[in-house]
Amino acid sequence: MVTQSFPSWPDVAPRLVAVAAGREPADTVVKGGKWVNVHTREVLGNHDIAIAEGRFAYCGPDASHCIGPDTEVIEADGAYMIPGLCDAHMHIESGMLTPAEFARAVAPHGTTTMFTDPHEIANVLGLEGVRLMHDEAMLQPVNIYTQMPSCAPSAPGLETTGYEITPDDVAEAMHWPGIIGLGEMMNFPGVINGDPKMLAEIAATQRAGKTVGGHYASPDLGLPFHAYAAGGPADDHEGTCEADAIARARQGMRHMMRLGSAWYDVETQITAVTEKGLDPRSFILCTDDCHSGTLVNDGHMNRVVRHAIECGCDPLIALQMATINTATHFGLERELGSIAPGRRADMILTTDLKTLPIDTVISRGKVIAKQGLMRAECPHLAWPDHARNTVNMARDLSAGDFVITAPEGANHVTANIIGVVENQAPTKALQMELPVVNGEVKGDPAQDVCQISLVERHRATGGVTNALVSGFGYTGNMAMASTVAHDSHHMIVIGTSQDDMALAANRLREVGGGVVIFKDGQELSLVELPIAGLMSDSPAHEVAAKADALGDAMRACGCTLNNAYMQHSLLALVVIPEMRISDLGLVDVRTFELIPLFEEGK
Amino acid sequence: MVTQSFPSWPDVAPRLVAVAAGREPADTVVKGGKWVNVHTREVLGNHDIAIAEGRFAYCGPDASHCIGPDTEVIEADGAYMIPGLCDAHMHIESGMLTPAEFARAVAPHGTTTMFTDPHEIANVLGLEGVRLMHDEAMLQPVNIYTQMPSCAPSAPGLETTGYEITPDDVAEAMHWPGIIGLGEMMNFPGVINGDPKMLAEIAATQRAGKTVGGHYASPDLGLPFHAYAAGGPADDHEGTCEADAIARARQGMRHMMRLGSAWYDVETQITAVTEKGLDPRSFILCTDDCHSGTLVNDGHMNRVVRHAIECGCDPLIALQMATINTATHFGLERELGSIAPGRRADMILTTDLKTLPIDTVISRGKVIAKQGLMRAECPHLAWPDHARNTVNMARDLSAGDFVITAPEGANHVTANIIGVVENQAPTKALQMELPVVNGEVKGDPAQDVCQISLVERHRATGGVTNALVSGFGYTGNMAMASTVAHDSHHMIVIGTSQDDMALAANRLREVGGGVVIFKDGQELSLVELPIAGLMSDSPAHEVAAKADALGDAMRACGCTLNNAYMQHSLLALVVIPEMRISDLGLVDVRTFELIPLFEEGK
Repeated sequence: MVTQSFPSWPDVAPRLVAVAAGREPADTVVKGGKWVNVHTREVLGNHDIAIAEGRFAYCGPDASHCIGPDTEVIEADGAYMIPGLCDAHMHIESGMLTPAEFARAVAPHGTTTMFTDPHEIANVLGLEGVRLMHDEAMLQPVNIYTQMPSCAPSAPGLETTGYEITPDDVAEAMHWPGIIGLGEMMNFPGVINGDPKMLAEIAATQRAGKTVGGHYASPDLGLPFHAYAAGGPADDHEGTCEADAIARARQGMRHMMRLGSAWYDVETQITAVTEKGLDPRSFILCTDDCHSGTLVNDGHMNRVVRHAIECGCDPLIALQMATINTATHFGLERELGSIAPGRRADMILTTDLKTLPIDTVISRGKVIAKQGLMRAECPHLAWPDHARNTVNMARDLSAGDFVITAPEGANHVTANIIGVVENQAPTKALQMELPVVNGEVKGDPAQDVCQISLVERHRATGGVTNALVSGFGYTGNMAMASTVAHDSHHMIVIGTSQDDMALAANRLREVGGGVVIFKDGQELSLVELPIAGLMSDSPAHEVAAKADALGDAMRACGCTLNNAYMQHSLLALVVIPEMRISDLGLVDVRTFELIPLFEEGK
Repeated sequence: MVTQSFPSWPDVAPRLVAVAAGREPADTVVKGGKWVNVHTREVLGNHDIAIAEGRFAYCGPDASHCIGPDTEVIEADGAYMIPGLCDAHMHIESGMLTPAEFARAVAPHGTTTMFTDPHEIANVLGLEGVRLMHDEAMLQPVNIYTQMPSCAPSAPGLETTGYEITPDDVAEAMHWPGIIGLGEMMNFPGVINGDPKMLAEIAATQRAGKTVGGHYASPDLGLPFHAYAAGGPADDHEGTCEADAIARARQGMRHMMRLGSAWYDVETQITAVTEKGLDPRSFILCTDDCHSGTLVNDGHMNRVVRHAIECGCDPLIALQMATINTATHFGLERELGSIAPGRRADMILTTDLKTLPIDTVISRGKVIAKQGLMRAECPHLAWPDHARNTVNMARDLSAGDFVITAPEGANHVTANIIGVVENQAPTKALQMELPVVNGEVKGDPAQDVCQISLVERHRATGGVTNALVSGFGYTGNMAMASTVAHDSHHMIVIGTSQDDMALAANRLREVGGGVVIFKDGQELSLVELPIAGLMSDSPAHEVAAKADALGDAMRACGCTLNNAYMQHSLLALVVIPEMRISDLGLVDVRTFELIPLFEEGK
């Protein structure tokens, strides 16, 4: 049993038994609610709940016998009592927030348990970064379990990360108290091909009795898919259509359906349950990735459950998919995920099971949020200085570092250019003719081509990889830089002006990471992400406001894309086709090969 | 993860992946069956299964790519492929068979996994006896997991067992490879009252991450029931009516419904699912206790599933209740209980999902039974001599040991008499007037009263507790003795003749335990149970034949009850009302007090 820093059921069983039997008073009693029972899939009107030591002690028709002089009594007034919501797979870093600030943002939405894969920080700070995330997670008033990241680098040989995860790292992490399993096994070609390193990571997790997260990001449901399932991943969240959902469930993998800020995979898959009638126990809801703006404006797991219901799912089944199904999947069904004796007293009061307004949130027996306002502390870890100084460049850059020299004597070149696509993570591999001016190639505003550079920031190598990108619509003199640069999280600088590119890169070096835009030599917008260059320890609404301002600034530079920050930050993700940039050069992700910037002989 | 002596999934994952991918041939391929998928609750026509290293490697539409020159190919010919059946709670000793012979009897019926509580032997041989059962279990070609017995004695202070289980014993056993959890916590008053010893046993089990078995044998669904649930038991099989089933499921306990040789608790409870529509995932099927005759003539878990279907349960749901629900409950859902990659290749071929004829049984990838005939070896443990010499009496008994002396000068007495009830385990506390002859009381044939004696057999104390019993209908001169005497398993001798009582007791001392009947000084019938006085290592059909002959002999002695051996062997079970016998005297189980044989002043 995985335990956070919280008394276990056996630690407090004598008290729970005494409260249920009526020999001792409870700490808290909730009276007169509709008990949403996810074990039986029933709503039971007018029931009471007694809580002691942060756990449910009694769930039944009348808890009067549990009330003493010091018992806090909460009148439910006929509201539904639902279990606290669980997010089965997610990356805290996607919110640009630390675990503490993420918890503070989502708890008022009713999320009381998260299964988090700190994959991003693992690429920057390695095992220590994972441990720091884990340790801050353990401080929170909600349950944050950590999945040990499995794949750093995600594409061995095509990039240099700040740290390389090994099977020994995985085995070591399995002993940490908050580790629940292995983070998504993204190297699915490795599993399918029997890569001993990937299978060793899975084995270390299985031998520890923990859950192996899956990530099979291919539409091929033939032999590679079956080989992946035989390798051991216990779940998958990469499906996008009904056939994906059904295939995974049939293989005995729990199928996770996600609604993130940019993932819309519930509506297309939930028909496996609502129309095809498959046993709902094999299905789970999650977010995977949520921006701070989504958390502030739209919600978190409550948004996902509500959406599933809007897609035609029975509300009780949708709630099971965000509570008991998740708990069972991770071996925690006697620890959380339902309102039942002995479990962590994580509970929400809501007046409507379809629209799910989150009135009161109780976590481990304490009211932590009411009417959307957080009442509990979310303690910050004392992050060490080196975790705040991860933009490790050898020196400040100058415009000259971004010069792209044309082949000797060329008047024009045929360049391999990354083409961004509206609202999509995949890119297009373009080839375009570009002019050469004074022996240099600088992009071509007429063809919407500007420069992209990958600035090495983990080992101060001084490395700058220069290439070209098309599709952002930038005009005038500008540059945007980000230390969020999946998955290796070097720094991506995109711009029309080499001077502005240098200014932007150096500014991030100065502030310890984040996202910045310069136009005509002036800073337009900055989101500071001082922790690992990925996260802010400011509140979500502040980060969301700065991210909004960033979007305004991008538009002010001529960008017409819907959410271009996403494309910007994914341009080094060398596992998604068709073309990316890494510290080693330009990568053709169709062939997993490094390719030259210019076609030969042109 | 609990592993029997069998390679784990991670041990063999490289091979499974290679087989699924088509790079290596499978050991066995089953072609053209209907895949009963208990994850999705579907039947998928014309599917293939590939097996390697005793585990499923591929489950899909076509396993042709897994067939090599040495692959065994089994044509399913359109038969249903269902997971091997699991018995979620049972006592092997109830079959009077060793684990090896029990496995040999039930495997052809499709039972490939058992969760066994060797409670009986624990009372005789203590922790060592549990270990011997565990060790023989681990030798078998089917999966036999052991639940560490929790309650010996079951009624502290009212009986002396051969061994007393302690929390330290429980903690130690949790490290054995085949231990899956704690056996049924029968001392429910102890849990409800916060008995530190009982809670310590539960705690040791929970801290080991294992499953706590429950046993709440009371119709009271009020506060005691809620207190018991708060104490930690994760399941219960003692319910007898729909309300019992619903109440347990709502408390987040898995509710086990049993059909044993003498338990008929499925029909009265399955309406919770079939009529009330509760989520079936909270319900499980089991046998609890099966006599060898049932195993030989009627079946085992196939009988239970078939019965559940006859009671109106959807066949796929009934199968889930005997496969994946059970596996999930014990934390084994990625190890067994479904036909899916990585799991133990435990599978049945059957031509009908309602009547469940068991054609072929595959366990860990091997065909172990076909058409009811066992093909695999079920190895016997080398049981140590002292496990075969447990009838530890100080000396042979004589008629004089059974003399009941009347109070000085009495002509008649008012005696407290155990009244057996047809087809029921509970007894009646009777008071009857009996004659005194020569200063002795010997029973009274006219009132169907004969003698009952509890002969101490664990510590050679020479103790004989003499009392009276009514209801068997015995006539003439006879005696029946049994070393199966729940739960303390001393020896119970019942008879109309003190000479025959002595002969019967001494005969069991001679053969090392069992059940015997004497009439007019001659042995009519004997079932030898040499191991712990509880089990035979002969085949089930031989034991069943001897048990049948025993029933004939009982009838020849005038007994008119349906299955009087059950009543006989339960008369020392000092936890079931109303009156029992123990080595300490006569017990009123309504008050849990020792009472005198004769009412005072009479």
